[in-house]
Amino acid sequence: MCPSRLVLEHVTSRWGVLVQIALLERSYRFSELRRRIGGVSEKMLTQTLQTLERDGFVHREARPVIPPRVDYSLTPLGEESARRVRELALWTESRVPAVEAARARYDAERGQ
Amino acid sequence: MCPSRLVLEHVTSRWGVLVQIALLERSYRFSELRRRIGGVSEKMLTQTLQTLERDGFVHREARPVIPPRVDYSLTPLGEESARRVRELALWTESRVPAVEAARARYDAERGQ
Repeated sequence: MCPSRLVLEHVTSRWGVLVQIALLERSYRFSELRRRIGGVSEKMLTQTLQTLERDGFVHREARPVIPPRVDYSLTPLGEESARRVRELALWTESRVPAVEAARARYDAERGQ
Repeated sequence: MCPSRLVLEHVTSRWGVLVQIALLERSYRFSELRRRIGGVSEKMLTQTLQTLERDGFVHREARPVIPPRVDYSLTPLGEESARRVRELALWTESRVPAVEAARARYDAERGQ
């Protein structure tokens, strides 16, 4: 697979999209982020954050406090990506009525 | 799941992204499109096109000729989406060197 296709898959992955949009607001701790996103398992969120960290989109900061605390934030590269992804998400949101109308037509034509 | 999240998942799905970008160029027949994208199974491409058709992004036209011929193209809604998706893909492509550098750093720090 060509490298840009793989990066695009990370950036547009189901949870990657939502992580980026959340981290545009502010940095989050793991459990906070998990609540903010909703519906994501611990394993999937860990994996998503790791992929985005390795790609240079997310910064992981382990703070030397008791109890230990880990903060996730966007890097400058991640912020660039997240803004684009959020724009796409907002556009999608604005087109939900059109999509729902199309689905109703499609299903009606097929008698579903 | 909220409806906009589901639409966003269709628009940014692995093959959905590549289908939209290809159809921005021109309409395609199924087998042509499959070759153009590369690496996609018949089943996955069928499923992707069906999802995008049902959502109102792709128009499927069965032409009454012999042998039968089916053309896929973007609807106006699909073109709006595809332009945004292509922009994101082009941006991603331009950032591949930065991502590869980040990965090398990440792996080096972990001795991988």
